Amino acid sequence: MSLGEFDLIKKYFDRPARRAALGIGDDCAVLAVPSGMQLATSCDMLVEGRHFLSTLAPERLGHKALAVNLSDLAACGAEPQAFTLALALPRVDEAFLAGFSRGLFALADAHGCELIGGDTTRGPLNICISVFGQVPVAGALLRSGARVGDDLYVSGALGDARLALEVFRGTLTLAGGDFETVRRAMEMPQPRVALGQALRGVASSAIDLSDGLLGDLSHVLRRSGVDAVVEIDALPCSAVLRAQPVAVQRLCTLSGGDDYELLFTAPPARAPQVSAAGIAAGVALTRIGRIVGRAAAGHAAHTALVDAKGYAVMHHAASFDHFRA
Amino acid sequence: MSLGEFDLIKKYFDRPARRAALGIGDDCAVLAVPSGMQLATSCDMLVEGRHFLSTLAPERLGHKALAVNLSDLAACGAEPQAFTLALALPRVDEAFLAGFSRGLFALADAHGCELIGGDTTRGPLNICISVFGQVPVAGALLRSGARVGDDLYVSGALGDARLALEVFRGTLTLAGGDFETVRRAMEMPQPRVALGQALRGVASSAIDLSDGLLGDLSHVLRRSGVDAVVEIDALPCSAVLRAQPVAVQRLCTLSGGDDYELLFTAPPARAPQVSAAGIAAGVALTRIGRIVGRAAAGHAAHTALVDAKGYAVMHHAASFDHFRA
Repeated sequence: MSLGEFDLIKKYFDRPARRAALGIGDDCAVLAVPSGMQLATSCDMLVEGRHFLSTLAPERLGHKALAVNLSDLAACGAEPQAFTLALALPRVDEAFLAGFSRGLFALADAHGCELIGGDTTRGPLNICISVFGQVPVAGALLRSGARVGDDLYVSGALGDARLALEVFRGTLTLAGGDFETVRRAMEMPQPRVALGQALRGVASSAIDLSDGLLGDLSHVLRRSGVDAVVEIDALPCSAVLRAQPVAVQRLCTLSGGDDYELLFTAPPARAPQVSAAGIAAGVALTRIGRIVGRAAAGHAAHTALVDAKGYAVMHHAASFDHFRA
Repeated sequence: MSLGEFDLIKKYFDRPARRAALGIGDDCAVLAVPSGMQLATSCDMLVEGRHFLSTLAPERLGHKALAVNLSDLAACGAEPQAFTLALALPRVDEAFLAGFSRGLFALADAHGCELIGGDTTRGPLNICISVFGQVPVAGALLRSGARVGDDLYVSGALGDARLALEVFRGTLTLAGGDFETVRRAMEMPQPRVALGQALRGVASSAIDLSDGLLGDLSHVLRRSGVDAVVEIDALPCSAVLRAQPVAVQRLCTLSGGDDYELLFTAPPARAPQVSAAGIAAGVALTRIGRIVGRAAAGHAAHTALVDAKGYAVMHHAASFDHFRA
């Protein structure tokens, strides 16, 4: 079966726009932004072997490609509105497209986020999605707002995606049921969209965890001009990861990557509102540390790791870097 | 020399945002859209060997990657505001990045369009740009507005990019100076941004020419529910192309691709305003035909080609299709 580019777009991706002023099929899509709101946008490019394994089912790839973008909107506290999809495919593969579009639209529909345009071309598999959301003027959660004395929180559980990756890499093994649990965390991350919106006006800063806790935290610290203390035994993780040796737990929770949880700060006085936001969004929140003053002016941002007794813990880890890993 | 991902972004792409509410460095960029305006967006993905040849200098690639996107804004009559860049690179190549970013920012600055975010990763070379522009509410030029009796116009000259491609393919040869002229047309297209804005309220429909006149015209006809008559001898082309055999002229002007001129329609009564828009934008405009009623209800859109005497001309050509070519 041979489908041309335009037929291909139509068959799998052309759905009528309901919210956008103008959707697929013209030179541009057009979005209305109500008075008092601003448009938040983010874009992520996914490449096979870097961002997903060849073993990933197309339906889960469709989910994940949009999920990692929605996670950026969540970190800003934005309400998802629309997205564009640019797709390079080595060949027209209808089984792939059917699964990919099914997973993509299932997540899009769950968040009221509609496809408004994009591009398809032949080439090495590459998925580039841009998402658009609305956020009140001056209401976006930023990386730069952490202040000395703020508590540091994380949503959900950390490290399962990294644990699954280590199984794929063959560095450890898990029983079948446990593997499916962590594999699902890696392949089907749930962007914390409702939580992000609930944290507007509550959190002082936020970021989504894509490259590992320590690396992503360092971005917040650098942009906020502060340091942090993280209580390593407070880091939330699943029962599957908790059953692993402590060294594996620390690797996965501190430097995991692909968590797509929110890391955020809030003043201690706002602890009740933080708790309420977690309940409203149906997501567990854990206080994992606090923001402290910059140890030395002009120095790089620093995160001190301490155990439950407050003693320093040594840990060597770097953020995931696509050009170093 | 080894640069990590974040250093790389900073060195070549991190420039302070002047117009965006929030630029590079957070989870999302944030754009303000003034009351009475809407946001137009488009995205194009460029793959080596499909959209550009390996012989293309990095500086020109940077120009072209943004130019093809600005051309979509032009076709909507939108004013460029910002763009995001997602870039997959096989390796960190500073000579490439220096040239690419120079060409990219030169064109961006010429149109007041600022880089507000993006993504970089390792992978087969792939460039995905999303552009954002402003257009008055209900003021965007659409493909769907062509009406029976409208005149059909095109900006600039057609076919030089295709002529250059044929030289690269070895199907014909050109003298050095002529080759450089058409090569520049292929590699450094000038998006008709000022013209698009000048045509708001004047043109009844518009599209940018990226896949060849006949193919792109068919999109307008299909969405407008009309047919067209094109006067083949009226098609504007350069002196270099005019010196080629008629068969080459027709191939290049009708099915060329990569022209990035605007094709638009307007009622005959608006001819003076069309002329004024061309003068204001500093771009030559040529009337190349007219819109006629759909020959048969339920049939596909049809373009009749006629010569200067009105006689039918036969021509076989298809639009460029990335999955068929």
